[in-house]
Amino acid sequence: MATDAGSPTTPWTTIRYRAGQRSEHADVLTTEGPVEFRIGGVPIAVLMRTPGSDEALGLGFVITEGIVIGPDEVDSIVLIEGTDHGDRYDVNLADGVVIDPEQFRRNVFASSSCGVCGKASIDAVLVASRTPPSGPIVTPGLISSLPDRLSEAQDQFALTGSLHAAAAFSATGELLAAAEDVGRHNAVDKVVGILASGAWPPGEIILGVSGRIGFEITQKAAVAGIPIVVGVSGASSLAAELGETAGVTVVGFVREDGFNVYSGAERIT
Amino acid sequence: MATDAGSPTTPWTTIRYRAGQRSEHADVLTTEGPVEFRIGGVPIAVLMRTPGSDEALGLGFVITEGIVIGPDEVDSIVLIEGTDHGDRYDVNLADGVVIDPEQFRRNVFASSSCGVCGKASIDAVLVASRTPPSGPIVTPGLISSLPDRLSEAQDQFALTGSLHAAAAFSATGELLAAAEDVGRHNAVDKVVGILASGAWPPGEIILGVSGRIGFEITQKAAVAGIPIVVGVSGASSLAAELGETAGVTVVGFVREDGFNVYSGAERIT
Repeated sequence: MATDAGSPTTPWTTIRYRAGQRSEHADVLTTEGPVEFRIGGVPIAVLMRTPGSDEALGLGFVITEGIVIGPDEVDSIVLIEGTDHGDRYDVNLADGVVIDPEQFRRNVFASSSCGVCGKASIDAVLVASRTPPSGPIVTPGLISSLPDRLSEAQDQFALTGSLHAAAAFSATGELLAAAEDVGRHNAVDKVVGILASGAWPPGEIILGVSGRIGFEITQKAAVAGIPIVVGVSGASSLAAELGETAGVTVVGFVREDGFNVYSGAERIT
Repeated sequence: MATDAGSPTTPWTTIRYRAGQRSEHADVLTTEGPVEFRIGGVPIAVLMRTPGSDEALGLGFVITEGIVIGPDEVDSIVLIEGTDHGDRYDVNLADGVVIDPEQFRRNVFASSSCGVCGKASIDAVLVASRTPPSGPIVTPGLISSLPDRLSEAQDQFALTGSLHAAAAFSATGELLAAAEDVGRHNAVDKVVGILASGAWPPGEIILGVSGRIGFEITQKAAVAGIPIVVGVSGASSLAAELGETAGVTVVGFVREDGFNVYSGAERIT
């Protein structure tokens, strides 16, 4: 199965566990995919986004990143070509508007905060992950118990209540590491960093995250060699696709009575 | 007031509106601030993060970004010095480990997905925003009505239910633009891009977002010249601080019976 690069949603065959029953389900995932914007032929940003309103995204991006002063400085935003991984647009500036490359380069790198920001080419998005470990085989009951265990780990922080959380569990559900952060990816990196001082390599680890599972989370798990990623919310299309490609089990919408498996269902009994 | 760069939380004086009453409240915000990691003296990443477990964050980052194979390749992660804006760490590699700068540069830029990733210097984080517009003066009742209006706008999309939403409202609460995306910042950029084709400059606009308000959202509003940002969840310390500095009204935890104002309270009656 593959991300539908042209649509905001992607059809996906999800394995549903509900009340002990396992079934295939024709699901719909939010599409996540890269789009590249260029000025004068030079890529200024690659954003991981949901397709739709791409021209508005490009126009808003060059404004909010301070690359142009306002819409009067942009003549048009035009689709260049499709690629295997996404789309490319030319941001054509109005006559007489001159951009200092160093200036906008700093701004783009400074604050774009995207999945692949600053990347010079779409074709390099899918960085190589290591050979996936075979990983543990876990029961549905263990998966369903993880959100509560993640909440308990979060209670340890007791900060301001609006942070992303991540935790590492053993194949028997033991909490090995937990972290919170304003950045979802940072919480994952902190957990991996804590593991790296002890439970390494993480070939038997289950990574739990408090929110949605996007491409970057799956990619970080794949590169670190973590076989199972479990989230309280859903997975994006590219997270599911990378899970399939890289051999990572991606599980979402985990509740007491069930969950959805987007890839790597062979690790769940 | 300023972000406490050394603590996961920052004290903040919030203006609370509850049931028609306005009061000052000694609040606590999640700290958001930059941390820089270097290898061989070269900055490889600046991450916007919540302070705490910084060494684990650095170790996890170089592993999950594929910069090193595993913890054996890292000898130590050592605090270099504090700066006005954050902290700097040296990632000291183990003897014999050689990094190809071009290789890790690609990986860092490809997938770090942070607020300021790829930035070469902490000192350039706070990019200049334009002179803030005086903006509209709005009533507490209008602010409290915005989450429902944002939800109505989200219903128009009716996708997979796990997306970030952003919308632009006029000073009288009229919906002018709305967008959803896997990326919070993309939803904002799409809204700004839609506005840019019509209601421009956005000096009378209220920007509503479905989740938390971090630095990047406030920065995008400030750079675009949007005077008021309203979120359903809270604001980070750096978002509040930037709101004060750049003259942006930042409002969080908006409910039917009240909300919290972190900066720019003069725009609310």
